Amino acid sequence: MEITEFFELSIGRWRSQRSGHHLAFAHFEQVLSDIDIESLSTDDPAVLAICQLYDTDPASITHPFRMTWKGESDWDDKPISGSTVLVPIPDAANSSRGKLLRDKGYAETISAVAKYHLSDDGIFTLLTEYELAAAEEKIWFATPNLRFRVATIKTSDGKGVTTASFSSEIRSLSNSIS
Amino acid sequence: MEITEFFELSIGRWRSQRSGHHLAFAHFEQVLSDIDIESLSTDDPAVLAICQLYDTDPASITHPFRMTWKGESDWDDKPISGSTVLVPIPDAANSSRGKLLRDKGYAETISAVAKYHLSDDGIFTLLTEYELAAAEEKIWFATPNLRFRVATIKTSDGKGVTTASFSSEIRSLSNSIS
Repeated sequence: MEITEFFELSIGRWRSQRSGHHLAFAHFEQVLSDIDIESLSTDDPAVLAICQLYDTDPASITHPFRMTWKGESDWDDKPISGSTVLVPIPDAANSSRGKLLRDKGYAETISAVAKYHLSDDGIFTLLTEYELAAAEEKIWFATPNLRFRVATIKTSDGKGVTTASFSSEIRSLSNSIS
Repeated sequence: MEITEFFELSIGRWRSQRSGHHLAFAHFEQVLSDIDIESLSTDDPAVLAICQLYDTDPASITHPFRMTWKGESDWDDKPISGSTVLVPIPDAANSSRGKLLRDKGYAETISAVAKYHLSDDGIFTLLTEYELAAAEEKIWFATPNLRFRVATIKTSDGKGVTTASFSSEIRSLSNSIS
């Protein structure tokens, strides 16, 4: 799989079933959510704002998108929801590697730069390093309409993984989050 | 990671936390188990019996092992337990690929031959094709003492994935299943 195909297949609405593993205590968390991944044009104001924030030439980016999610966890009564804009910048020498800019991380309220690469097996790995922790995410397609994601949070020394989660995401035929 | 290191790191006792996703109904299953992976010598009687069963030269095999598991699911009152012997045969031309012989599959009561390969990212993929379905498993190490497994069951035409599961496995210091 080429990285372009990976980005294009990601666009759409996904019904996500996520299991969180809190490793030290072998606790399980269950989350059901809807995720919208919407393609943006490279001159979208939200995209240009991120390019400006990171002092990046808009000509160097590819496949920017907005991700919006809305879900419920069995650990929390409050609905989970949010939205973020993500901007890939492929490496000039190797387009299957690059950086991913975003306005906010999943779990953080600050902006973040992640590194990505696509393996020869079609697994997209995203690594985000924060001050005190690092988040790694692996995403791959089982079929064009089914993708899996494994996310882990490590302490910043890379030794301890505190939580891991697994998401099965099925492409939905409806077009927007209700 | 070399395949030899992958096989050697797998040896030990693991405390496994598994989430099953039944995709059509977005059901969750939770399983806690202990898994023992024990190295066997290439002339162990159980290994030689499998070589004979598959008409395989014992000189062509590497790193045979026995896997034993004991656990409990929140879907079933009966404890889950079992044991199987597995025998890797690396491809002569490329040792990161090969076949894995076993006396019994995880979910099947018949013997099965699987194909494996290790990606450049250190992800070990195992594909077992049955008459009516195919099982794919991806296994990788987050650290030497933490491994992840994602298993999927597909219909034999490869189009439909019916279930997916994710296991977080932490190396245990005790030596045997109690």
